[in-house]
Amino acid sequence: MKTAITPTRAENFSEWYQNLIVAADLAENSPVRGCMTIKPYGWAIWELMRDEMDKRIKACGVQNANFPLLIPIDFFNKEAEHVAGFAKECAVVTHHRLKMIDGKLQPDPDSKLTEPYIIRPTSETIIGDAMSRWVQSHRDLPLKLNQWVNVMRWEMRPRLFLRTSEFNWQEGHNVFATHEEANADARKMHKMYGDYMREVLAIPSIMGEKTPEERFAGADHTYTLEHIMQDGKALQAGTSHDLGQHFSKSFGIQFLGTDGKLQHAWTTSWGTTTRMMGSLFMIHSDDDGLVLPPAVAPYQIVIIPIVREENADVLNSFAEKVGQQLQDNGIRVLVDSSDMRAPDKMWKWIKRGVPLRVEIGAREMESDSVTITRRDLGKDSKRTISVADLIKEAKDILNQIQVDMYNAAEARNKKMIKDVADLAALESALENGEIGFFRIKYDQTTNEEFEALIEKYKISRRCLDDKDPTYVFVAKSY
Amino acid sequence: MKTAITPTRAENFSEWYQNLIVAADLAENSPVRGCMTIKPYGWAIWELMRDEMDKRIKACGVQNANFPLLIPIDFFNKEAEHVAGFAKECAVVTHHRLKMIDGKLQPDPDSKLTEPYIIRPTSETIIGDAMSRWVQSHRDLPLKLNQWVNVMRWEMRPRLFLRTSEFNWQEGHNVFATHEEANADARKMHKMYGDYMREVLAIPSIMGEKTPEERFAGADHTYTLEHIMQDGKALQAGTSHDLGQHFSKSFGIQFLGTDGKLQHAWTTSWGTTTRMMGSLFMIHSDDDGLVLPPAVAPYQIVIIPIVREENADVLNSFAEKVGQQLQDNGIRVLVDSSDMRAPDKMWKWIKRGVPLRVEIGAREMESDSVTITRRDLGKDSKRTISVADLIKEAKDILNQIQVDMYNAAEARNKKMIKDVADLAALESALENGEIGFFRIKYDQTTNEEFEALIEKYKISRRCLDDKDPTYVFVAKSY
Repeated sequence: MKTAITPTRAENFSEWYQNLIVAADLAENSPVRGCMTIKPYGWAIWELMRDEMDKRIKACGVQNANFPLLIPIDFFNKEAEHVAGFAKECAVVTHHRLKMIDGKLQPDPDSKLTEPYIIRPTSETIIGDAMSRWVQSHRDLPLKLNQWVNVMRWEMRPRLFLRTSEFNWQEGHNVFATHEEANADARKMHKMYGDYMREVLAIPSIMGEKTPEERFAGADHTYTLEHIMQDGKALQAGTSHDLGQHFSKSFGIQFLGTDGKLQHAWTTSWGTTTRMMGSLFMIHSDDDGLVLPPAVAPYQIVIIPIVREENADVLNSFAEKVGQQLQDNGIRVLVDSSDMRAPDKMWKWIKRGVPLRVEIGAREMESDSVTITRRDLGKDSKRTISVADLIKEAKDILNQIQVDMYNAAEARNKKMIKDVADLAALESALENGEIGFFRIKYDQTTNEEFEALIEKYKISRRCLDDKDPTYVFVAKSY
Repeated sequence: MKTAITPTRAENFSEWYQNLIVAADLAENSPVRGCMTIKPYGWAIWELMRDEMDKRIKACGVQNANFPLLIPIDFFNKEAEHVAGFAKECAVVTHHRLKMIDGKLQPDPDSKLTEPYIIRPTSETIIGDAMSRWVQSHRDLPLKLNQWVNVMRWEMRPRLFLRTSEFNWQEGHNVFATHEEANADARKMHKMYGDYMREVLAIPSIMGEKTPEERFAGADHTYTLEHIMQDGKALQAGTSHDLGQHFSKSFGIQFLGTDGKLQHAWTTSWGTTTRMMGSLFMIHSDDDGLVLPPAVAPYQIVIIPIVREENADVLNSFAEKVGQQLQDNGIRVLVDSSDMRAPDKMWKWIKRGVPLRVEIGAREMESDSVTITRRDLGKDSKRTISVADLIKEAKDILNQIQVDMYNAAEARNKKMIKDVADLAALESALENGEIGFFRIKYDQTTNEEFEALIEKYKISRRCLDDKDPTYVFVAKSY
């Protein structure tokens, strides 16, 4: 059977993913090494994801703010452990002026900075510095801040959305008076992410704590959300960190307690990125292209009028009227009356993952009906219904698609998680080419034999099992 | 009379502005030279400004996208004229890794980039490069793109919001098949900005074309929006450029026309920045602090319960009920039941410019009424009205504030624009310390005498008079 994307997932998952991005017109590599350009359709998806996340962040009592892009190099020197984890691969600004030298623009040697700046790979340091001024008394706590910004971490092996040198994210940074509050809040934001991914992205997350080996540099506890791709590999889709007093000590975030004593505060940080889009695309899509959950689909419904020369005007205006009624019901709808051939339009919107396709030909128009097809179920779901029923049922159909997509991903996840009794069982599974997450006793993984398996099979500890933290999930990952 | 901000505007406008920013808790200088941190209250204002602008941009058929932060230095070499105007003072990335050397983090010499990158001062070049791939046929035109991003232009004399090395903006980049369409669109976006500033920011703009001397580097025509501050100085609040074929020729943006011939496209660019916030603050505020137009006020109404110990619970819950009803009417409202003293709360929200203040004491509660005060009119506007009337009239009152604030700024502008017959009259006005915009025949300003006045009085040509482009407005500026 011919598919819109070749190779298929089964043939070559990684190449299928690249071609999916092209077919759905989501993004492209830019002339800047490791950086992508997010094209309008991709960015429209991100805006929907971002706006819904932002609403939920604000509902947690967090305020948005905006901190500088550049970080003084000295700030990294203050946080040795943090540096070890982050500061190696990053973009360094060393000059502040260009000059024409030998007919070519070059950094002006006279503009060399005495202290270079780093393009933020993350902002714990510069926000910690601000917090040291903003937090004075227990009355200033908790302080909950977030920013939506771009960050850079130089990537040697970039992949669109999954790993790019520059990416967009939100980074939350909260401060509390006690460790209990900080830890509870790190878990709360972790849960908020899980709810968001389930309800908005239709993605089930494996949620748990990172093992000490995998923690964020400078964190006491890192809580992660791991997604399972269709090829069984893990993708870390978000993290929430209990940073203890690491940053409050490095940056002097102190407050006068109710007891009148000066003490160091407790901080957290939590972030999600455009990487989530990679997960969204890889989890739901199929061999015909993107499949978007309605909650983040720029167009939830596309209407395709199948016109002939003699009926184009009347049919297009009939389609417009149907579209208007759907839009009045709060649905994002596009009536594609462009001059492409109808089958080309159909495939265009299939590849772009529009949840519900509505086709209207002369026969449909005459009987005041339409033919609808769900993107997630494909042509088996094709049926003709009256316009009145479509208007009445469209929201329910979209909600059902959202739920069904989650359930499909959840069902696949179940098959992808396997218990293994010991390292021998794990190795034999990997050797047999089994894919997915392997659940094993954590104490089986703290030895050199396990390190050898990491080397050999490129696996890693993803997180402890929330239901029984003596177990850990192990998988290959993006 | 004691004012909340000292010095007053009359005493020292520039210091008043700095203190205004602090008093309203909008932003602060960061440890990064020339870069500011926008604090939560300032950022909340920007989010409202941005969301409303974004809506209007999309209504013009523009799609958002996202292009890389870094620009290859070679892209600047392609556009000599553009470089001359921009590329001198900018942040240059020369290394991509840090290394601990002599116990201190430094750029790793082994990570030196063969070609440095520039942090975008604006994105005509890198977007032009993308457009050269995205535009192939007349069917791809017009293509209208916008991005909301941070940019950097190294500033030697930074001032919060007005001039910062890093700032946030939207930059629109449109491509057309003909010069007529491009020019008409540059004017359309210019008009869109004017409408936005009038309707949303309550600011009247002097709208006109820049003289050839003041055009954007690489533009055929630059249309500007100039605002008049309370000290008579100009602030350029937005520009829209007809770029002709400059960038399409430098970057090879070509398309097959309907005639089957390959030809260069015509581009425009148009932008507004966080600088608009500086204008917003300087135009409307007074000696007691910020005055915000309701359209961009994070809280349009603040309710201050004036409690005594014995009635705190019942009064706070009464206030909450009033607040809830206002919120149900779509008003952004805050009930300040914090434990500050009532006068301190009052001054806090006066300084932060909340358009309408609602005070509720025991007497008001008993008579089911409230005392309201408009921020723009001050204590003369104080009156007591029933809760029922407040709920009914609140939206109208806010709309009236919005209109009145625009009219007040417009009335002041009128007094600030003066005709001068010739250079002698201009010099005498400047010498007498007259402030504002001076309208003079443009041909009077294309000579060395005028250049000497520019030098001596730090004035500049702001724009041609749209009603009679043989005249130009001249003023000191931010």
